[in-house]
Amino acid sequence: MHAIDLIRKKRDGGELTGDEIGFLVTGAAQSLIPEEELAAWLMAVFFRGLSAAELNAMTLAMRDSGDVLSSHRSGHRRVDKHSTGGVGDKTSFLVAPIAAAAGLAVPMISGRALGHTGGTLDKLDSIHGYRTDLSSQEMARVIDEVGACIVGQTESLVPADRVLYALRDRTGTVESPALICASIMSKKLAEGLDGLVLDVKTGSGAFLKNRADGLHLASLMVQTGHAASTPTVAVLTSMDQPLGRFAGNWVEIQESIELLKGERHALNEDLRELSLVLAGWMLHLGDVAQTQDEGRNRAEGLLESGAAIESFAAMLRAQGGDAGVIDEPARHHTPGARKEFLASRSGFVATMNCEQVGWAVQRLGAGRKRAGEIVDPHAGLEMHAKLGMRVDAGQPLCTMFAKSDTLFAEPEELLTQAIVVIAEHSATIPALIQQTVTADNARQFRQNQNSTG
Amino acid sequence: MHAIDLIRKKRDGGELTGDEIGFLVTGAAQSLIPEEELAAWLMAVFFRGLSAAELNAMTLAMRDSGDVLSSHRSGHRRVDKHSTGGVGDKTSFLVAPIAAAAGLAVPMISGRALGHTGGTLDKLDSIHGYRTDLSSQEMARVIDEVGACIVGQTESLVPADRVLYALRDRTGTVESPALICASIMSKKLAEGLDGLVLDVKTGSGAFLKNRADGLHLASLMVQTGHAASTPTVAVLTSMDQPLGRFAGNWVEIQESIELLKGERHALNEDLRELSLVLAGWMLHLGDVAQTQDEGRNRAEGLLESGAAIESFAAMLRAQGGDAGVIDEPARHHTPGARKEFLASRSGFVATMNCEQVGWAVQRLGAGRKRAGEIVDPHAGLEMHAKLGMRVDAGQPLCTMFAKSDTLFAEPEELLTQAIVVIAEHSATIPALIQQTVTADNARQFRQNQNSTG
Repeated sequence: MHAIDLIRKKRDGGELTGDEIGFLVTGAAQSLIPEEELAAWLMAVFFRGLSAAELNAMTLAMRDSGDVLSSHRSGHRRVDKHSTGGVGDKTSFLVAPIAAAAGLAVPMISGRALGHTGGTLDKLDSIHGYRTDLSSQEMARVIDEVGACIVGQTESLVPADRVLYALRDRTGTVESPALICASIMSKKLAEGLDGLVLDVKTGSGAFLKNRADGLHLASLMVQTGHAASTPTVAVLTSMDQPLGRFAGNWVEIQESIELLKGERHALNEDLRELSLVLAGWMLHLGDVAQTQDEGRNRAEGLLESGAAIESFAAMLRAQGGDAGVIDEPARHHTPGARKEFLASRSGFVATMNCEQVGWAVQRLGAGRKRAGEIVDPHAGLEMHAKLGMRVDAGQPLCTMFAKSDTLFAEPEELLTQAIVVIAEHSATIPALIQQTVTADNARQFRQNQNSTG
Repeated sequence: MHAIDLIRKKRDGGELTGDEIGFLVTGAAQSLIPEEELAAWLMAVFFRGLSAAELNAMTLAMRDSGDVLSSHRSGHRRVDKHSTGGVGDKTSFLVAPIAAAAGLAVPMISGRALGHTGGTLDKLDSIHGYRTDLSSQEMARVIDEVGACIVGQTESLVPADRVLYALRDRTGTVESPALICASIMSKKLAEGLDGLVLDVKTGSGAFLKNRADGLHLASLMVQTGHAASTPTVAVLTSMDQPLGRFAGNWVEIQESIELLKGERHALNEDLRELSLVLAGWMLHLGDVAQTQDEGRNRAEGLLESGAAIESFAAMLRAQGGDAGVIDEPARHHTPGARKEFLASRSGFVATMNCEQVGWAVQRLGAGRKRAGEIVDPHAGLEMHAKLGMRVDAGQPLCTMFAKSDTLFAEPEELLTQAIVVIAEHSATIPALIQQTVTADNARQFRQNQNSTG
């Protein structure tokens, strides 16, 4: 088999066989195929898409390029939640302990800040002692003990994705729904799951701005999950403003702990609701609830009973973290400087460019300009107003946190551009939960693959 | 400037500036841009095409990546002819000496056998002593002395094309009209020409099977030539059967010498006619004839007067070749074995798969299976029948020449498949010269570049 023949076949709109896809993926993982040939194939895939069979074959070949985790908590079904990324998105810290408290195993492998979005691992790093670099064996032990763990990618999992993602990043082939699907799903399927819920975000703060694109990607991922015998559901949610009250690193852990402890706040009901919806699906897919609705109710019960915060504390301890932070989390928020960002006029918060808000958070010090940089655990933003709310001129729209006062200028400029207050009340605030894609309706949402896959 | 931004721009249908194109081409020539990034860009160009401005910029950037020849024969205008390649295509050996005899300078840089087509340099190598590896200085001296020279590519000319062509060959991006145009035209423009005639072949023995594709490529090349201030004309010709009587190496030189000596034969009137048409354009573009028609008549006069064979002999001598072969060329054809290929039925030669005929010639030993192999100078084919001719069962359709009898089996099989004799006379023999593309009509033939460029 020669890569050139497979490149030409895909280029001309043909469908590669499973063996041919496997040849390319294995060749990538083992550096047997030169990167220029892989790059040409990836660009041809960008234009031609992948058929359902090709996408399934690629996802499985990528999954099988490294270790695949298997269940270690006997009798406990394994579920996970994955989000396509947003601003203030901290549902992982709620849904993982809720699912663990429901008796499920949650082998959650997460990532770092990317672009304008925060990274789950960067947030967890703000907890003193918490280790995200567990080996597969350590991960299995934590799951056996406490049900959930949240860790970083290990070298041995899905090496094909590391090679292909780095190559896509350099060759302009990141933005292909088929390749995004294969990348996400291969990593999730390598966790050896019995069920997966996907939070596919669209809107100004998401990577996919357009809802139709989100629906397409969601449908691809749901179908790919089912083809790999892992029941998968995608919830399409709006990312047009930060989720909850806080965006940053430690502040997001703090907000999650407060919610896990039952402290509710009008400005993070969206976060609570989305977490319960996602956890409801996890419980249903994990077979501890007959329906998603029953799962959601049970999740709410586990949150209110304190069972979820117990699971969270156990997970922190099992991963070396200081569970003492749970007692008075706000006390652990010690930014070097803080500054309020004020409304310049009275009216209603009409729209936010949520990506710019995300960049403001990154520039406050929560993210990196270059890979490997150290992030500021206390940098971030607290929102005092959300879409549709009435504000008066001079009232704080948010509070910025950073290491020093010198860091406020750029974020302030970004926020000035991002948050729009108008005189009239706007009726066009997008619903948080927009649509649910299941195996039953995924096919109808999947667009013509040959032109858009 | 970053390659990734340019890849994404082209991928999304944008138009690169001249500086951006120059950055990529220079980066390729000087190995400053990794091949995987170039490959992704080339595949994006395959799908998106190049605008006229991009194509002009790319062609000039490639031309200027190395030395550009300048006129050394003062007062003599420089013209050349380039063919997109076919079977039995030996017009170079006629048009170069005709144009030189007309007082023009012909700095012809040619190539080797490629795929099923023969190579001008391989044919010239069958002349004892003839050197095709002249330096630019030697080339200039030969042109000054005798008006024409036919040589191979030197390292210093168009290095960007060497890098990009090798990369295209490995990454499935050869078959892009825009990239083919830039490759051909950058090399021709590096010859420092005042005029260029292109023989764009279509049909079963050409690389472009389809006439519309040929017309599109011809139009791109004509417009690119004019944009670079080199008046360019393309003649679209049919390559549905070998041109002339012979296909191979020495046999093509022999046939050319016979025609240059005025020996005509019914089976190579096509070769003579096409050579005069092409030479007519060279003379017209080189300003020694007011019209193409006048140029064609003058070319025929130079052929018949013996002036052209004198130029050919002078070129052979100037390049170290044994001009003695001109006296009795047939005597120098010494194949190890010969075998006739007979008509299996009576009727009319209806069609030929001319690419298969070309492969038969290659497999007889005229071509290589791997780069660098030595070719057999005496391998080849003599045609005894051409399209539309009546033949009787058992009559020879052609004679095969090879080193030994053992080499005939595969070519014979290819010819059996390739040449179709039917009972009824077929009226669908394509005209040799199908269309002429000049600056005046090129624009109307150029298809929508964004979808096909």
